[in-house]
Amino acid sequence: MTQQNFPASRPVIALMTDFGIGDGDVGVMKGVIAGITPDAHIIDITHNVGPQNVSSGAWILAAGYRYFPKNTVFICVVDPGVGSTRGAIALHAGDWYFVGPDNGLFSYVMSEQPIHAAVLLANSSYHLPTVSSTFHGRDIFSPVGAYLARGLTDIFFELGPPVDPAALRRLEMGGAVRDRTTINAYIVHIDNFGNLITSIPLSIVPELYSVSQVKIVFTNNGIAVEKLRQFFAEGPDDGQAFIYGDSSGYVGIAVRNGNAAKTLGIGFGAPLALITSE
Amino acid sequence: MTQQNFPASRPVIALMTDFGIGDGDVGVMKGVIAGITPDAHIIDITHNVGPQNVSSGAWILAAGYRYFPKNTVFICVVDPGVGSTRGAIALHAGDWYFVGPDNGLFSYVMSEQPIHAAVLLANSSYHLPTVSSTFHGRDIFSPVGAYLARGLTDIFFELGPPVDPAALRRLEMGGAVRDRTTINAYIVHIDNFGNLITSIPLSIVPELYSVSQVKIVFTNNGIAVEKLRQFFAEGPDDGQAFIYGDSSGYVGIAVRNGNAAKTLGIGFGAPLALITSE
Amino acid sequence: MTQQNFPASRPVIALMTDFGIGDGDVGVMKGVIAGITPDAHIIDITHNVGPQNVSSGAWILAAGYRYFPKNTVFICVVDPGVGSTRGAIALHAGDWYFVGPDNGLFSYVMSEQPIHAAVLLANSSYHLPTVSSTFHGRDIFSPVGAYLARGLTDIFFELGPPVDPAALRRLEMGGAVRDRTTINAYIVHIDNFGNLITSIPLSIVPELYSVSQVKIVFTNNGIAVEKLRQFFAEGPDDGQAFIYGDSSGYVGIAVRNGNAAKTLGIGFGAPLALITSE
Repeated sequence: MTQQNFPASRPVIALMTDFGIGDGDVGVMKGVIAGITPDAHIIDITHNVGPQNVSSGAWILAAGYRYFPKNTVFICVVDPGVGSTRGAIALHAGDWYFVGPDNGLFSYVMSEQPIHAAVLLANSSYHLPTVSSTFHGRDIFSPVGAYLARGLTDIFFELGPPVDPAALRRLEMGGAVRDRTTINAYIVHIDNFGNLITSIPLSIVPELYSVSQVKIVFTNNGIAVEKLRQFFAEGPDDGQAFIYGDSSGYVGIAVRNGNAAKTLGIGFGAPLALITSE
Repeated sequence: MTQQNFPASRPVIALMTDFGIGDGDVGVMKGVIAGITPDAHIIDITHNVGPQNVSSGAWILAAGYRYFPKNTVFICVVDPGVGSTRGAIALHAGDWYFVGPDNGLFSYVMSEQPIHAAVLLANSSYHLPTVSSTFHGRDIFSPVGAYLARGLTDIFFELGPPVDPAALRRLEMGGAVRDRTTINAYIVHIDNFGNLITSIPLSIVPELYSVSQVKIVFTNNGIAVEKLRQFFAEGPDDGQAFIYGDSSGYVGIAVRNGNAAKTLGIGFGAPLALITSE
Repeated sequence: MTQQNFPASRPVIALMTDFGIGDGDVGVMKGVIAGITPDAHIIDITHNVGPQNVSSGAWILAAGYRYFPKNTVFICVVDPGVGSTRGAIALHAGDWYFVGPDNGLFSYVMSEQPIHAAVLLANSSYHLPTVSSTFHGRDIFSPVGAYLARGLTDIFFELGPPVDPAALRRLEMGGAVRDRTTINAYIVHIDNFGNLITSIPLSIVPELYSVSQVKIVFTNNGIAVEKLRQFFAEGPDDGQAFIYGDSSGYVGIAVRNGNAAKTLGIGFGAPLALITSE
């Protein structure tokens, strides 16, 4: 995970939602943005976050934001509480800005980056003139993100009153707890190839490739994975699953030329223990 | 549904097709556009309109076009008649331009906006040098749209001979017919969350939230929905479907944290009656 | 298949991968590109190439690259061998540049265009500072493609040592072999409508529409298609499959308003013979 050092000369706006791409909703958000900040470079992270799956969205954002230029504005909408009393926020953390609901979507970012400031999106001058109760992605988050991408720190505190970052919501699920040689964690992502990604950062298992044995046991059903490989091309040819260091910076489980999730019958959220032996 | 007031300083081209995103077809259209109008901001509405489902495409366009900047050129290709004698048109309506087949795709736009002019795309100087019989999206609509985004009214009448807008095709299906307290309509869209969207504009049911009772009955099978809610977060916790005002500007049916289409077993095109009682 | 003559005034970068769009991987690649070449126009060809299906990716690229502006840089990542010893290359062929693994993905391009030069991507100054073993799309191909789109021939030979184009990998599968009136070939693509596209270029069957009879026989199971049509709108109304000239420039098989792959039960890679009779 290497951070980009180049600030972009055009405003960059990255979008992540659970809207899918079958409706025109994402296109409409971009239409709103193009009207406010015509020279924006709009980049889709994904719009296929599992519907209303905040944990999954938080992880997908975590795996990618460091690779975007400084001052990128991330508009993130996985928002089961839209229309309720959940807050809408903008967050300035590390070299980036984040706009979305206050529901834990920025948990990883807040734990990994220095938090400079956060505001509640209360100033309706930066919203569309009419705000619906169900499509804040279009009516609030897109216009706010578009104005923010133009104005950055000049505009940040005009978006609404500051809020104490310590009061923002964090996810309870996710993360990894280490107790000597055992790390308890979860499957927090299944990628397009069916690789199972855990919530264990490689940085907390520095001995991964030097100990004599590593295994992952799924605590619900006892399924165990005991092989370890560095590259996909090194995976066993026999269709067996193996542990590897995923490019996202987390421990993963894969099957060479196959689908680990299907092979093992393991799904999102599965609890697990990684155990190392000298 | 609020209209944007900002004209963009870069040409904006919005694309909607039923080509899906598995082929390279959409990418090829963008390659053609980038060659003609390099500074275009190309925005995808969606490419997952149901294959050859003109009614669905017309509705998706209707729900979104108002949010795009003035002078946006919409290139829309849901075109079961490609290669037949159906016309290919450009339309200037309201603050926007529309390019595509004359098959009803612009029905909502034409009923909602003042129509300034329409032309048949007969001038091959604005097409690719070789035009295939099956991929007019690439060979005709993309180059025409790209030139139009640069030239706007300066070029509009060079694209081909004017055609009487009254002669353009409108869809018969869709729309809503009100007879006192009963409105007959259809399900015209199922969104990513399984919400069922009707063809009833909220504007023709101003009493929706003030009458004592509202219900929707599906006329084919008698299934009825009798609850009404303003926000998703207010939906019944019991998994029952409820009526709400969708952010698209139409009456919808949803299940809180669930999928209304699956829960009710209702699909695209289902006829229904909305009935209000004092 | 008509070539564009317009060089674009902005760098154009086209992306094709098998990463899908559910992960943020494609977005991360764009974030890297935007940091290096902020004014790039990034265009997706598709990210839904069948997982690790190099043959399919090669054909999708072949059907589209001619329509992109001169100097477009194609970053193509269908890379089952990532982490093994397969080479990583940049290729200058025809009016375009291609960046990706040396595994046959550029087979059609190399057979169709003059090859000016190829290099191995050995110069790590053009890679991200840390290169993972599994995500070269992000760590090598995206930064190389972004720098190349800015520098073109000025930078090409700085990317790494030249490699003899004759030594680059070509696919064995695919292509079409003509023996008098019989052409042996394969199904190399199934499009979004279920049309079956063969590896037979229309250019090697100039008599397609003038001979008295044309048929395609699938050699594995004897299924035969004997009707020929020019336009979809001319297809038989009876649900029978017909042969046609696909807009990609290859012979295809379709069912009017239907799905030829499902109707015939034919899949990717199926071997076939096209036979013409005077």
